[in-house]
Amino acid sequence: MIEIMIDLQGGAKAPLYEKIYEHIKREIVGGKIATGEKLPSTRRLAGNLAVSRSTVEMAYDQLLAEGYIQSQPCRGFFVCDIAQLYRLGTADMQTPAEEERESGEACEVDFSPYAIDTGSFPYNIWRKISRNVLMDDREELLLAGDGQGEYGLRSEIAGYLHQARGVNCSPSDVILGAGNEYLEILLAQLLGGERTILMENPGYPQAYRTFCNMGYQVKTVAATEQGLNVQTVRDVSPELVYIMPSHQFPLGSVMPLKARLELLAWAAEKPERYLIEDDHDSEYRYRGKPIPSLQSVDGQGKVIYLGTFSKSIAPSLRISYMVLPPQLMERYRENCGFYSTTVPRMLQDILKEFIRDGHFERHLNKMRGVYRSRHDFLLGELKKRGWVRKVSGDHAGLHVLVEVDTTLTEEELCKRARMQGVAVSGLKEYELERAKADTEVVLERTQISGEAAAKRGAGSKEGGRSGGFPVLLLGYGKLTEPEIAKGLEVLDAVCDSRHADF
Amino acid sequence: MIEIMIDLQGGAKAPLYEKIYEHIKREIVGGKIATGEKLPSTRRLAGNLAVSRSTVEMAYDQLLAEGYIQSQPCRGFFVCDIAQLYRLGTADMQTPAEEERESGEACEVDFSPYAIDTGSFPYNIWRKISRNVLMDDREELLLAGDGQGEYGLRSEIAGYLHQARGVNCSPSDVILGAGNEYLEILLAQLLGGERTILMENPGYPQAYRTFCNMGYQVKTVAATEQGLNVQTVRDVSPELVYIMPSHQFPLGSVMPLKARLELLAWAAEKPERYLIEDDHDSEYRYRGKPIPSLQSVDGQGKVIYLGTFSKSIAPSLRISYMVLPPQLMERYRENCGFYSTTVPRMLQDILKEFIRDGHFERHLNKMRGVYRSRHDFLLGELKKRGWVRKVSGDHAGLHVLVEVDTTLTEEELCKRARMQGVAVSGLKEYELERAKADTEVVLERTQISGEAAAKRGAGSKEGGRSGGFPVLLLGYGKLTEPEIAKGLEVLDAVCDSRHADF
Repeated sequence: MIEIMIDLQGGAKAPLYEKIYEHIKREIVGGKIATGEKLPSTRRLAGNLAVSRSTVEMAYDQLLAEGYIQSQPCRGFFVCDIAQLYRLGTADMQTPAEEERESGEACEVDFSPYAIDTGSFPYNIWRKISRNVLMDDREELLLAGDGQGEYGLRSEIAGYLHQARGVNCSPSDVILGAGNEYLEILLAQLLGGERTILMENPGYPQAYRTFCNMGYQVKTVAATEQGLNVQTVRDVSPELVYIMPSHQFPLGSVMPLKARLELLAWAAEKPERYLIEDDHDSEYRYRGKPIPSLQSVDGQGKVIYLGTFSKSIAPSLRISYMVLPPQLMERYRENCGFYSTTVPRMLQDILKEFIRDGHFERHLNKMRGVYRSRHDFLLGELKKRGWVRKVSGDHAGLHVLVEVDTTLTEEELCKRARMQGVAVSGLKEYELERAKADTEVVLERTQISGEAAAKRGAGSKEGGRSGGFPVLLLGYGKLTEPEIAKGLEVLDAVCDSRHADF
Repeated sequence: MIEIMIDLQGGAKAPLYEKIYEHIKREIVGGKIATGEKLPSTRRLAGNLAVSRSTVEMAYDQLLAEGYIQSQPCRGFFVCDIAQLYRLGTADMQTPAEEERESGEACEVDFSPYAIDTGSFPYNIWRKISRNVLMDDREELLLAGDGQGEYGLRSEIAGYLHQARGVNCSPSDVILGAGNEYLEILLAQLLGGERTILMENPGYPQAYRTFCNMGYQVKTVAATEQGLNVQTVRDVSPELVYIMPSHQFPLGSVMPLKARLELLAWAAEKPERYLIEDDHDSEYRYRGKPIPSLQSVDGQGKVIYLGTFSKSIAPSLRISYMVLPPQLMERYRENCGFYSTTVPRMLQDILKEFIRDGHFERHLNKMRGVYRSRHDFLLGELKKRGWVRKVSGDHAGLHVLVEVDTTLTEEELCKRARMQGVAVSGLKEYELERAKADTEVVLERTQISGEAAAKRGAGSKEGGRSGGFPVLLLGYGKLTEPEIAKGLEVLDAVCDSRHADF
């Protein structure tokens, strides 16, 4: 039997049993106590170290549980063969080649339209709920759970959608997923086959690329203030139409009721036709009543409704939801029912309580106030600028469009701003054709042909893209008033065409 | 100006300011205080209610932030038009039609091979790390973050894979995803096109169905103890081969080094050939040293390595990882680089600290002890049974295969066991062909043709599926010894063919 001496005074602050456990483990791993060696009895070691016997017992229990020692009845504790044990991060670890982490682009002011305010996040409440959720050692938190997402959270979401967006749905119509793109992937799988989908241009390049990746033929038409014209849809003849009727991204236009009803009637003509409604940022409107969702006026189950907590809570949550009409829910169960959910159970529980206890409502109302005042400040500042030809897409969402009176190109403007520490994007970056070069031929054909081309011309005038002037997207989600002012000052210098050749 | 009286004594236990806030909000929402009405000054209301002025100020601040009231300089506080505000879950809420929650199948003993032990999860440590991660109001926790997953967690995973599985990778080769199926979807997208993939049968029906859904032609061959024969692969002529060389699911066989090297040589012959190594439960081996991964002997970048924390921590975490060879990483960036990660940032941070601080290592070693003793107990009990013809797939993973001496069919066995409260699955449930009926023709052709059919015959003998006797999968991951004993007693009655007609 070996003797063990441990310095329990020095070193890091840790419980005594842990110091004993760590010391003996280190000795075993380091080969200083050999396989088969007998450890002192708990009574003896406790006496030698002048600690209580239960302290030594806790240390031995830990070593037993992790397989460093074994207990032989009536004989004592013996060191195991530890060749099979995991020993991560010990001194002899061969670390993989270190690599430099890509440094984030450091811009002082970032006008990204995707950015949200992070200062107003209710950290305290989130912490409290997290603690509560984890408190009771509930084993169901560890199990795979419902593939659609937990019923409790789906129920809260259905209630919210019904109240805030007029969406007609029950919890069983809701599917949770780790982001809109994941839900679009699911959608493509449950619909099956290679389909044609029509999207408005410009739009979300991510949605465009997702459907391309899933083997869809994606056709685009220019977005207009009048919404998607049903004749254009008939010309292109897709099975699916992807729209953002309540707030088109990035143009910010709202589809009039007439266009909505015509699209619904078009979809109802054939069983395989569906409208995908991406209701991405409907939470934030600063003037007038919220516009009801397209789904709320659909009586025939032709609308697939998509929404997300990325803008209303945080992009890092990775929780989106999809509401399917009944006949597609059947296909989901058939083709995709075997998938586990992509949203972790603990996070589902936290979000459920966050909504149920009224924190989501309070957060939304608070954030709308925050964003509205930034929006108002930005608009007030833009009015003072000579280089601002036109502002559009205002009074909702988290960005506005600004048409700039300059001889510079959009790319040049953005580049010069970035060189001075201001990140800003031009409207062209949201042109879907740019997102994937190899589908361009199809797109070109679609856009030029007859009616569609006429609409496109109309769109160019009314969609805020007239005459070839650059259009910038100014997102204010995460910017304070001084930051907005600072960013605009840089744009003053950059946008003023008289200074274009400095 | 109105007077406000609030009963601060009664009702729920809550801070005073919150009671005041809730009361005034309720009065505004209920229309009892009208739009434009002036509220009493904070000093006056504080006096009336006999509370401190700062208490009233906190309540008013909350109402201001959420848009119920507005402040007019030098005039006071006025009630806003609240038509635009979110009011979720108030009394007038129209709740969606309530539906019955599907009741989980209640089995007393569940021999599921997917189940893990939940009693040993280190809840305390997880809680502590969660609290630390959320502690500092770090705004980056809310931002979208790295599409591949955060560098810190990828680095910990790369270190673990290198140490425990010999995987050659740096953090930049690792992609995180919400489950293996999501990573398989990504993989299909980054490889592009309609490809042919070969899988061993039986296997993971989820992986089979995922590749089917992604438009792949999935062919199967019978799994054998000798591992996948390279001649069989040549006969089928796929581009991709999906294997579980360290522990085939569900058979439990280990692919010999010779077969591994032959497969690697086959893959190296053409640029588009790849081996997908699903290293699903390599953490749990109870005899001998861990078997190094196939990726660790691949010198030419032909192995795509998949792993998960579902079995080593919990299925509900939804964190899996994929290690790509360099040339595929380029294609990932091109075709899939636009996707946001599907793993929430907070969870990534928690897991990173869990691994970094040694808790993952301790948990693995502890769980291996737990599972090993259950495995040993189950094997000991099975030895006593007359109805057990053969046990295979033992000494690793979380289940064993038991060939049953009975005149009953597998389905009948499982059904009778279930009727007596014991959930158990038969090997046939993991036959991939059953997973999707409409691909059966292709499969049939593949399996019957020449060499492949001969292999299949061999497989039938050696893979533990001889002579048409039923084969049950007995998973012990979440079962205690008394539960295992109880389950086996039920199987005693069910499996004994002399009682088959009771």
